[in-house]
Amino acid sequence: MQLTEHASSLDELRERFQTVRNFSETLCEPLTPEDCVVQSMPDVSPTRWHLAHTSWFFETFVLARQPDYTPHHPEYEYLFNSYYNSVGKQFPRPQRGMLTRPGRDEVIEYRHSIDVAVSRLLEDLPEDMAGSVPAIIELGLHHEQQHQELILTDIKHVLSCNPLMPVYREGVTQLTPSRELEWIDFDGGIREIGHTGSGFAYDNESPRHEVLLRDFSLASRPVTAGDYLAFIEDDGYRRPELWLSMGWSALEQEQWTAPLYWFEKDGKWWEFTLAGPRPLNPAAPVCHVSYFEADAFARWANGRLPTETEWEVACATHGAADGHFVDGLLAADRPVHPAAAASDQPIAQMLGDVWEWTASPYVAYPGYRAAAGALGEYNGKFMCNQYVLRGGSCATHSTHIRPTYRNFFPPEARWQFSGFRLARDAE
Amino acid sequence: MQLTEHASSLDELRERFQTVRNFSETLCEPLTPEDCVVQSMPDVSPTRWHLAHTSWFFETFVLARQPDYTPHHPEYEYLFNSYYNSVGKQFPRPQRGMLTRPGRDEVIEYRHSIDVAVSRLLEDLPEDMAGSVPAIIELGLHHEQQHQELILTDIKHVLSCNPLMPVYREGVTQLTPSRELEWIDFDGGIREIGHTGSGFAYDNESPRHEVLLRDFSLASRPVTAGDYLAFIEDDGYRRPELWLSMGWSALEQEQWTAPLYWFEKDGKWWEFTLAGPRPLNPAAPVCHVSYFEADAFARWANGRLPTETEWEVACATHGAADGHFVDGLLAADRPVHPAAAASDQPIAQMLGDVWEWTASPYVAYPGYRAAAGALGEYNGKFMCNQYVLRGGSCATHSTHIRPTYRNFFPPEARWQFSGFRLARDAE
Amino acid sequence: MQLTEHASSLDELRERFQTVRNFSETLCEPLTPEDCVVQSMPDVSPTRWHLAHTSWFFETFVLARQPDYTPHHPEYEYLFNSYYNSVGKQFPRPQRGMLTRPGRDEVIEYRHSIDVAVSRLLEDLPEDMAGSVPAIIELGLHHEQQHQELILTDIKHVLSCNPLMPVYREGVTQLTPSRELEWIDFDGGIREIGHTGSGFAYDNESPRHEVLLRDFSLASRPVTAGDYLAFIEDDGYRRPELWLSMGWSALEQEQWTAPLYWFEKDGKWWEFTLAGPRPLNPAAPVCHVSYFEADAFARWANGRLPTETEWEVACATHGAADGHFVDGLLAADRPVHPAAAASDQPIAQMLGDVWEWTASPYVAYPGYRAAAGALGEYNGKFMCNQYVLRGGSCATHSTHIRPTYRNFFPPEARWQFSGFRLARDAE
Amino acid sequence: MQLTEHASSLDELRERFQTVRNFSETLCEPLTPEDCVVQSMPDVSPTRWHLAHTSWFFETFVLARQPDYTPHHPEYEYLFNSYYNSVGKQFPRPQRGMLTRPGRDEVIEYRHSIDVAVSRLLEDLPEDMAGSVPAIIELGLHHEQQHQELILTDIKHVLSCNPLMPVYREGVTQLTPSRELEWIDFDGGIREIGHTGSGFAYDNESPRHEVLLRDFSLASRPVTAGDYLAFIEDDGYRRPELWLSMGWSALEQEQWTAPLYWFEKDGKWWEFTLAGPRPLNPAAPVCHVSYFEADAFARWANGRLPTETEWEVACATHGAADGHFVDGLLAADRPVHPAAAASDQPIAQMLGDVWEWTASPYVAYPGYRAAAGALGEYNGKFMCNQYVLRGGSCATHSTHIRPTYRNFFPPEARWQFSGFRLARDAE
Repeated sequence: MQLTEHASSLDELRERFQTVRNFSETLCEPLTPEDCVVQSMPDVSPTRWHLAHTSWFFETFVLARQPDYTPHHPEYEYLFNSYYNSVGKQFPRPQRGMLTRPGRDEVIEYRHSIDVAVSRLLEDLPEDMAGSVPAIIELGLHHEQQHQELILTDIKHVLSCNPLMPVYREGVTQLTPSRELEWIDFDGGIREIGHTGSGFAYDNESPRHEVLLRDFSLASRPVTAGDYLAFIEDDGYRRPELWLSMGWSALEQEQWTAPLYWFEKDGKWWEFTLAGPRPLNPAAPVCHVSYFEADAFARWANGRLPTETEWEVACATHGAADGHFVDGLLAADRPVHPAAAASDQPIAQMLGDVWEWTASPYVAYPGYRAAAGALGEYNGKFMCNQYVLRGGSCATHSTHIRPTYRNFFPPEARWQFSGFRLARDAE
Repeated sequence: MQLTEHASSLDELRERFQTVRNFSETLCEPLTPEDCVVQSMPDVSPTRWHLAHTSWFFETFVLARQPDYTPHHPEYEYLFNSYYNSVGKQFPRPQRGMLTRPGRDEVIEYRHSIDVAVSRLLEDLPEDMAGSVPAIIELGLHHEQQHQELILTDIKHVLSCNPLMPVYREGVTQLTPSRELEWIDFDGGIREIGHTGSGFAYDNESPRHEVLLRDFSLASRPVTAGDYLAFIEDDGYRRPELWLSMGWSALEQEQWTAPLYWFEKDGKWWEFTLAGPRPLNPAAPVCHVSYFEADAFARWANGRLPTETEWEVACATHGAADGHFVDGLLAADRPVHPAAAASDQPIAQMLGDVWEWTASPYVAYPGYRAAAGALGEYNGKFMCNQYVLRGGSCATHSTHIRPTYRNFFPPEARWQFSGFRLARDAE
Repeated sequence: MQLTEHASSLDELRERFQTVRNFSETLCEPLTPEDCVVQSMPDVSPTRWHLAHTSWFFETFVLARQPDYTPHHPEYEYLFNSYYNSVGKQFPRPQRGMLTRPGRDEVIEYRHSIDVAVSRLLEDLPEDMAGSVPAIIELGLHHEQQHQELILTDIKHVLSCNPLMPVYREGVTQLTPSRELEWIDFDGGIREIGHTGSGFAYDNESPRHEVLLRDFSLASRPVTAGDYLAFIEDDGYRRPELWLSMGWSALEQEQWTAPLYWFEKDGKWWEFTLAGPRPLNPAAPVCHVSYFEADAFARWANGRLPTETEWEVACATHGAADGHFVDGLLAADRPVHPAAAASDQPIAQMLGDVWEWTASPYVAYPGYRAAAGALGEYNGKFMCNQYVLRGGSCATHSTHIRPTYRNFFPPEARWQFSGFRLARDAE
Repeated sequence: MQLTEHASSLDELRERFQTVRNFSETLCEPLTPEDCVVQSMPDVSPTRWHLAHTSWFFETFVLARQPDYTPHHPEYEYLFNSYYNSVGKQFPRPQRGMLTRPGRDEVIEYRHSIDVAVSRLLEDLPEDMAGSVPAIIELGLHHEQQHQELILTDIKHVLSCNPLMPVYREGVTQLTPSRELEWIDFDGGIREIGHTGSGFAYDNESPRHEVLLRDFSLASRPVTAGDYLAFIEDDGYRRPELWLSMGWSALEQEQWTAPLYWFEKDGKWWEFTLAGPRPLNPAAPVCHVSYFEADAFARWANGRLPTETEWEVACATHGAADGHFVDGLLAADRPVHPAAAASDQPIAQMLGDVWEWTASPYVAYPGYRAAAGALGEYNGKFMCNQYVLRGGSCATHSTHIRPTYRNFFPPEARWQFSGFRLARDAE
């Protein structure tokens, strides 16, 4: 993380702090207390846990720096530590769904108590904290925004386990035709990727460094549900030759026959969304696919996934119209953007529709070193058996995404809002 | 089940119906909505599920007998069927904790709607239902009382998974000395066991039949926590020769070193109770032990567990002072009964303190045949790899226990309020 | 075990010792060294392990009683101890198939060295051993005969895992019609069961004791493959109402659709036998079924399984023609006995065709106490979650079976030569 | 794979074919028939399986191209297909250890029959096969050499499971001091990596392509057991901050406290080798470590693992003295090479001592496309969640290794002869 001082004054930071913190609670408004308890699989955390953990972050890394600080509750350090070994023991992750207390009201109270304390600290920041605390708060806000996205992805999974198919929030989906796919060409050569400038970035986006690219072409839009349907209908899930070996094993083990949340009813395809079950929208980007499925589709389509380098260079070159960020709370996931369909930009929607799987395993940039101490555990220790996704999804906040952002998940993960676009070598 | 008409008039039945139904809700008063969601292990069901399932029972087996009956909700038959294959498919048991909807309020509403409908039906019972419905309602009420006990045992397990050790209900435990153990002798010969008379009984208590007994002695009281501590301190959990082979495997697998809910803190033994953590009470009956632990203790103590035949004959012979039934809601589990300690009766407390493991595998009585149809699935299909427990516990309602009652659990189960008393052969 | 001195003189014992020991090796003659390595499931032990363990038994319980005895190999006590905690640690059972050494030749050498030592000891038995050693050797020979049966059941399972379906030994099966089933009536009353007389018996067959029986009828022959086929064709494996709850779970989990080793090919039923694949013989007793399958069949057929008491009383009453013991090494498993079909005896073939599941959980007889020390671990510690089987199978040696013999296996076990016969209550 | 015609004439190829084929059998000479059966974990295959599968390769991809070819055995295509979906179904990998037939003699017979047939074909190669068959045979021989290495790594694991710690082959280990570690500097810039020239290479080594390197330094020798001991003694296995998150999980799950095959006895470190248990040799390269352990050591030592690009460029720049290839059958694994210690070359032993983990996930080179058909399944479908290892080990045949060779294993794998050397960024 870029733990340096930023342009924003402390006042601006305080305001932004409150805005981001409030938004977490806004996201939970449609949920019942019961909804906020369940961990539907080990990857998922209960909503209450997200709300408490993000507060724990500020308490642990900001408030506890004050001499004589008394923790809000003696057990919370243990209960709401996610994975920071340097901080201490953690309540076992797969058991987060066993906790019924503290209840939602108590968690909200915990949040507010932290909010007040951080706000007060910022009003009168001791000199010896001025160098570090603003940057840590900035990091904490981005951390909170990551969890806001997880609140949505996780609750979608929780609700999907219920045959009643509950609605998180009603929403309107406009069915508009998707754009025609075009291939945009890019020249190879030595380029630079990675974070630059004074804005916030995670540590894994640095150092900015030179890369060697070969000529390539990139699709002007993500693969759509309609495109993907053709793959299914061409027996894509029954032809091992299209799949990585581990992908085929996952398919057999999990009995995949379509993206997560798709289901057939009376001979038609539907998908479960945050607005409840909906008929499949062929014009929308396909979503909730694993790396394995993206990779198999690409092989079937005689293309390939772009590397993260190609993706970032393309995004930096052309800019990119924005997609459907969550901050507008448009409700249904992945609506088709009318503007996008009519966009003049060659590559539309690189940010904010679906996270796009790249062909790149998640590794350190050359010269990367994780920071010392607990915050160094934020990103670096996960650089193994994960793939980089780029661009942010409809569940990402628009202030939380940028062209250099490196998200990462294991190749079998499907519960994120993950899609992909195709690339190919220059001919 | 004894599905015959009982003495009670329909009015009395309606009143009893409402009393029992209300008590289920009374039991849930101390719980938050969050508490009612979690399934802390496959054996445990969420509180809301118990509340809904017991209503489903009346809806399915009583209300749905009416022509043109419209179900309360089209999915509830599937969601809240426990194990009745004859009724239809069941939502998978291990996933009951995944359901956040219907929420507690909706479930309560469901309950009340069923209550009203059953009550109305009883007010004006069609002639063709008069022969069967009262008996099924009676069965449903005993079924509900079983689930009332499960509500308590299950929520105790749920709360115990939380390092905060939440309190279900505050309560006072009187620490009084336990009675001295005495051995009561019984003569052998041909006796009868099994249900008799016109009161309610489950089908597995019939037919009443002759058994051949040998002379035996039975302990006047259950094994106490203090007795059991001596076993622990004599390395009882480290000496395989005291254990059944399967028991030793369970001990090693689960790393048992004491009864469930016991823990050591600062060199002292505590137990987690429904009133929160408490110092161990050596005078109280030991509780939350498996059949394996009861059996190993008995071998260590040069005794044995009684057969269910011996237990029932003893109980029928001597009557038995009552224990600490839940209907008084005395709060802490397993208080020591002052009266019991002073009792004149040779065998005190056979009913209502702890379920007592017997040496008897759960098998059909000679001549037993399960009823046809779904209600025949109530008991008979579980007659395998389970052991009979007798007597009822502090969590059993006093109107729900009788000397012929046969409870049953697998030998490794510990989350029930299960203890035991010793027997021995006549010398 | 009946550890008393028997009629046989030491000379007779020595001779019998060598005969039994040799027979173990005779059974292994058709096997390759590779065959003797594999453990195809945790229940199965490799052939070499059986050969070594039975020798370990004599070494540990007989030879090691001699002062200054030097073990054949320092690691064998650990490697070949099965489950005797009193003797010491055991090499983990599920890993027996990991051991490639000692090889077959070394194991045979181990056997012969033990044989010589035991034989010498018997030639000149020290006085202080005269009281115990002959009885322990007798026990060891019966132990060895149990393992002879296991060598056959286990190797059948091992070979069945191979698509090449190898033949253990060629054999001829005579297809003769099975006898008509008759119901033989027995009067109730007080009877005695359990071991009596001076012959050898395991400890679990004692004490002989009185039991109370009700009038019942017993089938004159076991259920045949043809009978069982009718159950399959009547959707027996698809109707949960016929099954115990645990049985139905096992069926679903293991995807049972027929007895173990049955398979369909070109629309016909075959079974894998020790003589390789064979067309199903409808006249032969059905074999390789679990307790669950026997129980479900009985429910379907409006019968029930006999209790072990009923079985023993019937066997004692009528005597019983012998079946097809392995000592003749007739090769194919479960041939139809021509003699049996023509037998005049009302109940034929109670001994030596298939082990017959009874309805009786395996519990201690009243007054039973396991012996002290390691040999007390032989039987007693397994009295949990197992069912009694009676009668011996075609793989049992004829000198190793008797009407009071109590075999036991968990209800899901199918790899033994296990079948069943029906009983019913008197009308 | 480079499926083009090679310089070697058909005669030379035939001779080389026989040499390589014979060597597989030479490797098995010290083994008993029993040794060749066991699969000690799913990654391991039984020796007999390796012997048969390598023959299956020639039968399937060479001999079966002949019209009217009759397979050696109708079931072998199924039994000995490893993972080629295009060829057909495969016997399940985790069950390879269940097969006791065909026995070793039959497998050897199978091998010889294939040898004769291939040899004959090469003597008179039909014109329409001249273009493809020699290249496929070349591939088959390299395939066989890979399995020769696996025969050794797998049997080492099998034997290690046995408390008897059997010896594969006696051997002499010379304990000589290891070289002092030096850091060799390399300049960055654009370089080329990947296969070039007319020799054999697998398809994953192509296309040769440009890469952009930064200045770096590489250690002159692999990390030694002595170096690694210092890491252990500095609590390396108890400090989560040194480990990748997945690595720490693996450590906890598998309870790693040292490299595979290390064990402590009487306060001293030993390792199990193919020559049996040996005192740890501190001068030898550390071996049998996972990627996770290599990565954690590097972090502890303030270094990092080299990328495969760095490794290849270094190897290509300096050449490299050879290590201790198996073809000499020096017996003990990883002896210290006296010559190496005295070598003048700056980087000794890059080839032939231990496989060296690199920091590089196994991905396709730019422009890589797997071949069509079954042989395209050889490498490409495994490009996921694996890391590249370079250099070959003491168990690799010297004719089977080259600087561009890319081996790959999952990061948790330890049973290969895998070590590592350190790199660091230029200062």
